[in-house]
Amino acid sequence: MVKAAVMVAPHQSIEIREYPEPEVEPGGVVLRILYSEVCGTDVHLWRGRLAGVPYPLIPGHVSVGVVEEMNGTVMDVEGQPVRSGEIVTFLDVWGSCGSCWYCQVAQASTRCPNRRVYGITMGAEEGLFGGWSEKIYLRPNTHLIRLPCQLDPLRFIGGGCGMPTAFHAVERAQIRLGDTVVVQGSGPVGLAAIVFARLAGALTVINVGGPAHRLRMARALEADITIDIAERLPDERTEAVRAATAGRGADVTIEATGQSHAVAEGMAMTRDAGTYVVAGQYTDSGEVPINPHQLLNRKHLNVLGTWGTDFSHVYRSIQVLARYGQRFPLEQEISRHYGLPEAETALRDVEEQRVVKAVIDPRYY
Amino acid sequence: MVKAAVMVAPHQSIEIREYPEPEVEPGGVVLRILYSEVCGTDVHLWRGRLAGVPYPLIPGHVSVGVVEEMNGTVMDVEGQPVRSGEIVTFLDVWGSCGSCWYCQVAQASTRCPNRRVYGITMGAEEGLFGGWSEKIYLRPNTHLIRLPCQLDPLRFIGGGCGMPTAFHAVERAQIRLGDTVVVQGSGPVGLAAIVFARLAGALTVINVGGPAHRLRMARALEADITIDIAERLPDERTEAVRAATAGRGADVTIEATGQSHAVAEGMAMTRDAGTYVVAGQYTDSGEVPINPHQLLNRKHLNVLGTWGTDFSHVYRSIQVLARYGQRFPLEQEISRHYGLPEAETALRDVEEQRVVKAVIDPRYY
Amino acid sequence: MVKAAVMVAPHQSIEIREYPEPEVEPGGVVLRILYSEVCGTDVHLWRGRLAGVPYPLIPGHVSVGVVEEMNGTVMDVEGQPVRSGEIVTFLDVWGSCGSCWYCQVAQASTRCPNRRVYGITMGAEEGLFGGWSEKIYLRPNTHLIRLPCQLDPLRFIGGGCGMPTAFHAVERAQIRLGDTVVVQGSGPVGLAAIVFARLAGALTVINVGGPAHRLRMARALEADITIDIAERLPDERTEAVRAATAGRGADVTIEATGQSHAVAEGMAMTRDAGTYVVAGQYTDSGEVPINPHQLLNRKHLNVLGTWGTDFSHVYRSIQVLARYGQRFPLEQEISRHYGLPEAETALRDVEEQRVVKAVIDPRYY
Amino acid sequence: MVKAAVMVAPHQSIEIREYPEPEVEPGGVVLRILYSEVCGTDVHLWRGRLAGVPYPLIPGHVSVGVVEEMNGTVMDVEGQPVRSGEIVTFLDVWGSCGSCWYCQVAQASTRCPNRRVYGITMGAEEGLFGGWSEKIYLRPNTHLIRLPCQLDPLRFIGGGCGMPTAFHAVERAQIRLGDTVVVQGSGPVGLAAIVFARLAGALTVINVGGPAHRLRMARALEADITIDIAERLPDERTEAVRAATAGRGADVTIEATGQSHAVAEGMAMTRDAGTYVVAGQYTDSGEVPINPHQLLNRKHLNVLGTWGTDFSHVYRSIQVLARYGQRFPLEQEISRHYGLPEAETALRDVEEQRVVKAVIDPRYY
Repeated sequence: MVKAAVMVAPHQSIEIREYPEPEVEPGGVVLRILYSEVCGTDVHLWRGRLAGVPYPLIPGHVSVGVVEEMNGTVMDVEGQPVRSGEIVTFLDVWGSCGSCWYCQVAQASTRCPNRRVYGITMGAEEGLFGGWSEKIYLRPNTHLIRLPCQLDPLRFIGGGCGMPTAFHAVERAQIRLGDTVVVQGSGPVGLAAIVFARLAGALTVINVGGPAHRLRMARALEADITIDIAERLPDERTEAVRAATAGRGADVTIEATGQSHAVAEGMAMTRDAGTYVVAGQYTDSGEVPINPHQLLNRKHLNVLGTWGTDFSHVYRSIQVLARYGQRFPLEQEISRHYGLPEAETALRDVEEQRVVKAVIDPRYY
Repeated sequence: MVKAAVMVAPHQSIEIREYPEPEVEPGGVVLRILYSEVCGTDVHLWRGRLAGVPYPLIPGHVSVGVVEEMNGTVMDVEGQPVRSGEIVTFLDVWGSCGSCWYCQVAQASTRCPNRRVYGITMGAEEGLFGGWSEKIYLRPNTHLIRLPCQLDPLRFIGGGCGMPTAFHAVERAQIRLGDTVVVQGSGPVGLAAIVFARLAGALTVINVGGPAHRLRMARALEADITIDIAERLPDERTEAVRAATAGRGADVTIEATGQSHAVAEGMAMTRDAGTYVVAGQYTDSGEVPINPHQLLNRKHLNVLGTWGTDFSHVYRSIQVLARYGQRFPLEQEISRHYGLPEAETALRDVEEQRVVKAVIDPRYY
Repeated sequence: MVKAAVMVAPHQSIEIREYPEPEVEPGGVVLRILYSEVCGTDVHLWRGRLAGVPYPLIPGHVSVGVVEEMNGTVMDVEGQPVRSGEIVTFLDVWGSCGSCWYCQVAQASTRCPNRRVYGITMGAEEGLFGGWSEKIYLRPNTHLIRLPCQLDPLRFIGGGCGMPTAFHAVERAQIRLGDTVVVQGSGPVGLAAIVFARLAGALTVINVGGPAHRLRMARALEADITIDIAERLPDERTEAVRAATAGRGADVTIEATGQSHAVAEGMAMTRDAGTYVVAGQYTDSGEVPINPHQLLNRKHLNVLGTWGTDFSHVYRSIQVLARYGQRFPLEQEISRHYGLPEAETALRDVEEQRVVKAVIDPRYY
Repeated sequence: MVKAAVMVAPHQSIEIREYPEPEVEPGGVVLRILYSEVCGTDVHLWRGRLAGVPYPLIPGHVSVGVVEEMNGTVMDVEGQPVRSGEIVTFLDVWGSCGSCWYCQVAQASTRCPNRRVYGITMGAEEGLFGGWSEKIYLRPNTHLIRLPCQLDPLRFIGGGCGMPTAFHAVERAQIRLGDTVVVQGSGPVGLAAIVFARLAGALTVINVGGPAHRLRMARALEADITIDIAERLPDERTEAVRAATAGRGADVTIEATGQSHAVAEGMAMTRDAGTYVVAGQYTDSGEVPINPHQLLNRKHLNVLGTWGTDFSHVYRSIQVLARYGQRFPLEQEISRHYGLPEAETALRDVEEQRVVKAVIDPRYY
């Protein structure tokens, strides 16, 4: 039997349940979980803020583990067969159809209506489809990536799902070498955006966020300037950004806050003809008043909403972290490890921002 | 002496004043005006809605005329000398510095803080710098374009400043051949956007606007579907767009309304991973509530504010109209010609939407 | 039994063979063929110029037919179930893996090494996988498109595989509204490129090709200028293009000739900082000397090789032809219909350019 | 009187001549030269390989100096007045017209036919217009940049004109974070391309060039792999690149060799659907045979010729070097300083590749 932490229904206590070993279809893979992430989305799942979630659910969309069982030969993206005992991770999105209008005509795969996500929209009654478990079952056609040997699994999970999310945001931003980039928000997405913005060409990176311990982390990840939202009013923050940019505002601003009111502020912080990437509004935190004359038309602004991630973001962010991990030790974002019975504690710690990053470690008691 | 219609100050009566013949610097040109446009911006000028306007002002930023006098040889953009008696128009923006950070580093010339505009920010006390006049004086380094012989000056002025504005919006939209494009607004910018969107590859063009006589014009300019805002509520309009696009929304939506509340509606009308170009918010009509989760992030939307025009938009829109003018007879937008003494009547007619397009004709009494 | 025209081996006579009715897997579809194209690639197949072709082969990659049999519900790209008796076509590429590095990381699906093509790399020993046959068997996950009711199947096949190929080339070119576009070559790809370049915003379209009857077709498809390669030397053609473009050369040139020597000429015809799309070099016609100082570096040229097509090109080109077919009656490219026993005659007629477009019609004797 | 090194005519000895102090027009600036570069173009000038050069010429297009005299207030690009005694450099291109078709319609300013270049196309008979001189006279509307205080003038000149040239090439390449980039050539342009490619997101940078002392410099500038062209045949180099890229070739290759035969090799080194930037063919080294089927069409390759630099490249490359100069100490490229009387020795040393970078220092004897 396999033990897993189960979100039975919104707001209810997390339970430890036991499931039978998965039956492995041809092309399927069983991973023994090393680490699985607790991210803000898991809190939203627990609070019932996402529609269409098939509770009971084993959460944990971004996970890393050891290949324990396969049915037949399974290839990674490089066309190399995966071997038993290897450490791998996977794209949490499964089942982008590759056939619908969004996949084939718009080529906007993150908007495919058929995509499903391990740990979010694949429920426990269907299978062992979440990472808060001793094992996860990966269905055929899950996109697998072998972890490069330079990349410690703990460092990888320290980046977590914030890493490909931030990578996607930075790609959308099309940073030019020499740009000044503001990142709004100091959570895992914001911190990863600081790193990737720097590596993609930003010359000056400004982080607007908090609290203080996260801003320290931001500076350790090479943010040049941090602005604490607890210490400065919105107008003062915008002024501080302008002061650092010869009065113009940032060339690029990346939003990673989850708060709708940050959007108007982020637009104002961006220079005329600059780019504003909205990547943090994964749940509905309400409307924000926008003045389209001042903030869109006259500013000649590019505003780019950014949803989900595709395999290239996961693959590339892993290659980048494998190379630059010594310089950007993301495992330091991990505040605490939690065993499966502590999953609910982990959720509460994330919800109340007592930790930067919480990690589920099923081997840990 | 030269007669001109002068906006003495906001809200005051338009006066006819007389000015001495301009002194022509080397490289300067005097045009005898054939036609000058009355556009929505002129109403805003009259109502005092723009900051930094040097009243008294001779309005008329887009004009066409006959070369009457030059000091020395003046070249057009093709490097050909302009000759006396030729019919020319010009980019209304004068004096983009070509030296500032926006011109040289950001290469966003429409955001150059030094740019000045004939008929808007170049006042009557400085010179004969507006088109509502028998003659206009074009300073050295004004960008001149000879009207192609296939292009009747009246057809050109029928397009007016809406033409390069719409051209810029359509270029920003990067329409793919086969796209469905919604244009919000049926004024001169919206009507020109219908034409240029079609010519740039749109397969289906939907115009959301009014009143009925403008929607007739929209259909004459090859809009496939028109939706009258007087007849349908906002949600019904969005539903109508979805019904015409297999439930998805438009690939591209171009805003040309001048009303801030249109912005949220336009976002909702656009499909996931589509593009929304905001080109009509030239004056401040207030804030609009936006839900960034629903309309930006989850939609993976591109929102592109679009300010001003540069010479390429004027040049290209003229070439296009010269070629396709028979098919898109924009002179039919002109509801009435007004002599100089009727300039105030023209302003009132535009303000109250009694006309689609009003033209000042200084030869007309 | 099903009759098909079979290319037994390179250079050998085309034979009529009979095959049993296909067994239909779940998700598979049998089409009764209405028309199948004879394209230049088929001549190359017959002459043994492509590597890795699994002879014996039923040629015919682009075909249109009537749904005769299905196993279970099969969806089209809009998510609508296909019904028996409907007229459909399909993307000839089957089996892009969606899993490899090119599909997932580079997102360059036309370079997926696993892609196979009906009528080219799927041989007769595997199944009824070509269109020169009474019926074709479409394997599960073939991308189907219902022909819009405005689009006559004969007009569709008149465009043939030149249509998505040209569409792809035109998309790569990113034509700006108002551009002058040269198309090199007057075969089916070149003719379709003339149409799509126009519809995507070209103001002036120049066709450099031949022979005379194809140039007549080019003009019927709204090419503004045609230059007969039999009448003018290469330098004279380049001069003619410059003469039509104020001495500068074309903004965009699209190569659709199949002759390597055309590439240097096409570069020379393109203006500085313009774009040259190479779309006609599907087989190896040898090397061409290029001067990179003159033709690449100093010209600041963009040269874009263009391989294959994806579903979006097929889908969009069909929507466009459905709408504009009256204006661009591509069925007029069809010089003659050939029954299955005449397939070899068709190949010879295409090889010797006696026809613009040859169509196999299995119902025709 | 002002002493300058003068290239009297091609192939003749460099002479020291004396000129009167320049008369300063309003907006003009006199710089006392600190350093001026000797670059490959200067050798081409001396060997008479460029057309339209107005000998006698004071060479030295990229220079840095101290503001000695101005006529009136002169602004830098940030809108700040330049002060006497400040250390500044400038865009060597002067007089891009801002009015012609290339400037205004194509917006390809580096192809403006009116642009002139200090030290190359502005001759000694017109004025003190080159940097191999005690002083240079900068005409009104020269684009000035103040050197940031973190940037030693010697480090700046160590980058020289290779720096903006490489910057432009890297911008054209649109490197994605995580790409593998090959740089062909180990001269100043190639070395700067290594640095900027890394900073713009390249994960692995491979330098193909030589000789050994330059490849050491390449590794010091963080090239991951160097391939010595003296040690490996062209096919072996391509194989080495493929071996480092899972058999695919580089995502991006940047050519900075000056040898036409490198172009076919660079195409072959680049992966399918990758990007090849041709930036080193500033003079004509002859034709190279290219197979367009293999290297363009089937590879689906982007080939981007890159001519000249604009102000943004100079400005941005200076900001980047000011920030990262400790990590990339480009002054180490400077092999030797030469006084004005040694200018001819410097030319010979550059021509025969005895030095990486030669610098003229007019204060040095």
